[in-house]
Amino acid sequence: MESLRTPGPTPCPDEVLQAMARQMINHLGPEFQKVLGEVLDGLKELFQTRNDILLFTCSGSGGLEAALVNTLSPGDKVLSVTIGFFGERFAYFAAAHGVRVVPLSFQWGRAADVGELRKALDSDPEIKAVLVTHNETSTGVTNDLGAISSVVKDYDKLLLVDAVSSLGSIDLPVDEWHCDIVITASQKGWMAPPGLAMISVSPEAWKAHATARIPRAYFDFAYTRDCIEKGYLPWTPAISLLFALSVSLKMMREEGLARIVARHAEVARAARQGVKSLGLSLFADEDHASNTVTVAKAPRDIDVNRLVTILREDYHVVLGAGYERLAESIFRIGHLGWVNSGDIEAVISALRTALPRARVS
Amino acid sequence: MESLRTPGPTPCPDEVLQAMARQMINHLGPEFQKVLGEVLDGLKELFQTRNDILLFTCSGSGGLEAALVNTLSPGDKVLSVTIGFFGERFAYFAAAHGVRVVPLSFQWGRAADVGELRKALDSDPEIKAVLVTHNETSTGVTNDLGAISSVVKDYDKLLLVDAVSSLGSIDLPVDEWHCDIVITASQKGWMAPPGLAMISVSPEAWKAHATARIPRAYFDFAYTRDCIEKGYLPWTPAISLLFALSVSLKMMREEGLARIVARHAEVARAARQGVKSLGLSLFADEDHASNTVTVAKAPRDIDVNRLVTILREDYHVVLGAGYERLAESIFRIGHLGWVNSGDIEAVISALRTALPRARVS
Repeated sequence: MESLRTPGPTPCPDEVLQAMARQMINHLGPEFQKVLGEVLDGLKELFQTRNDILLFTCSGSGGLEAALVNTLSPGDKVLSVTIGFFGERFAYFAAAHGVRVVPLSFQWGRAADVGELRKALDSDPEIKAVLVTHNETSTGVTNDLGAISSVVKDYDKLLLVDAVSSLGSIDLPVDEWHCDIVITASQKGWMAPPGLAMISVSPEAWKAHATARIPRAYFDFAYTRDCIEKGYLPWTPAISLLFALSVSLKMMREEGLARIVARHAEVARAARQGVKSLGLSLFADEDHASNTVTVAKAPRDIDVNRLVTILREDYHVVLGAGYERLAESIFRIGHLGWVNSGDIEAVISALRTALPRARVS
Repeated sequence: MESLRTPGPTPCPDEVLQAMARQMINHLGPEFQKVLGEVLDGLKELFQTRNDILLFTCSGSGGLEAALVNTLSPGDKVLSVTIGFFGERFAYFAAAHGVRVVPLSFQWGRAADVGELRKALDSDPEIKAVLVTHNETSTGVTNDLGAISSVVKDYDKLLLVDAVSSLGSIDLPVDEWHCDIVITASQKGWMAPPGLAMISVSPEAWKAHATARIPRAYFDFAYTRDCIEKGYLPWTPAISLLFALSVSLKMMREEGLARIVARHAEVARAARQGVKSLGLSLFADEDHASNTVTVAKAPRDIDVNRLVTILREDYHVVLGAGYERLAESIFRIGHLGWVNSGDIEAVISALRTALPRARVS
């Protein structure tokens, strides 16, 4: 049995996998309506929101694009707060649709500086919306979204949050923090397979939607809301993933959000301590280290690709490699969703014997 | 056990459902690469093509949008050949992206007239591409795609084919018929759950892609092809659906395309004869009646909603209702994918006793 410790996809509990094996049903019938209702109820509780929640059959990245095309028009100006690879992807998607992107980039490994954010908003009143990654999976850093939000709302801008790898694992009170659009995806903290994006939409975001002119069809928010009000989803949704999510959400509600958040914090502490116990350094500024993914700096004499291969082949432990500029110099341990401290001990133990074998001779 | 006889989603064989229950793997690792390779090999055989095949985590409608945004620019003119609801959806998606749509609509229930198509292409040299639905699920009609294609290619236009409910069930030799883009989806003849669109792209379509300027990100063809060449899929794909498809494609290749096509023809004949044996008329022109879905006209004294409800609740038979203008006047029997004549006999038998109970008193 493989230990999948990438920061998504994440392993699924048996009950969730069994739900995936359920036979198909009519996506326009009453049985589906019931499942959809259960999923939306569960999500509203865990998003801590009274906003609308929309579901799309796509990856988290599809959800990011959906958020942009439903709230912006070509030529609109957005401030893109980036601290890593996924922040850059969000900005790239905006630019692809003719949005003018003002970058506010911070060093990879560090969190966004709220003072710089205030300055950027102060100096450019044309900015309509702010894009921010809550938890940056490429660097293992969690932004202080509460503080970011209060600045963004001081300036009355729309706040679009990539919470793909945080929501359901790290506390994110969507309404309390006035997040207008929040995007997450099924294969992260939600303990389900990939293929569904879940998005909350505030009344302010609906206002923006009403005048947003980027063309869209599959990802249209209004059509999706209209269908949900009638008890179904647009097009033919990934029914199996709704089955899975209805089960995993039930498990999450039974555990309770506070306990889930505490478990992730505890597991992350174990991961950070474990990495340091191996003599390795954390890539992230530890004050903002993520509770869902730990990124370790690889010593110069370690071949990261060899390390990842040895771990997979000989220890059945699957870690994430680095993205782009970090491809050769870090590795990533995912600890979100269905995870406990024992899982992390096993990873650290495997690393302890695998590391010397991955040394460049 | 319910008998799901909507024209998609369709029931999945046990082997496919068991594959859905498989634990997650790294979508960037060698194990996924192997599954992806198996799926693409199987699809190429059943598409009868040497063109590239791309996969997207989305519904078939998402696949339609992907086809449009990757081959067209705002202001381009397309001829939209429509014979029902799904043809209109394809055209609507094009218009949503600023494409100028020239409609060539035929009466619902009839196939497209190839002479009219020739006239339309002859009279407007500005037309760049032709949109056509191979099999129109809303009316139960299959277009003569071979004949349509030869006219379209006489005029050297790009041919975009919605084959969502035909490919893998009804013969569609993609290369022989010079279809530039062909879109299908996992929950139809492919015996897998919904959530994956599969799209073939010809060299001519790639040429169009090179200059197509409709903005896109999630659905970008070139990025998808680049990822596939490296052995993975863009973003985080619906891994479970790849598992399912790898199993269902193996079953399909074992049965053989010719036998699958013959089985669908036989089952469709049984459905049409069965409907007529109940004293009902077919909605479709019988010369072009579909081999994947049979649409029956409801007699005036039958309440269609009541009929569908009685069948579901008392007979565990789930049929499709009509779309839009046909909502009250037809019902639809899906017979694609995992289906045999016995399944259809059971539907007809249920209808025989349910119909009198659905009479308006």
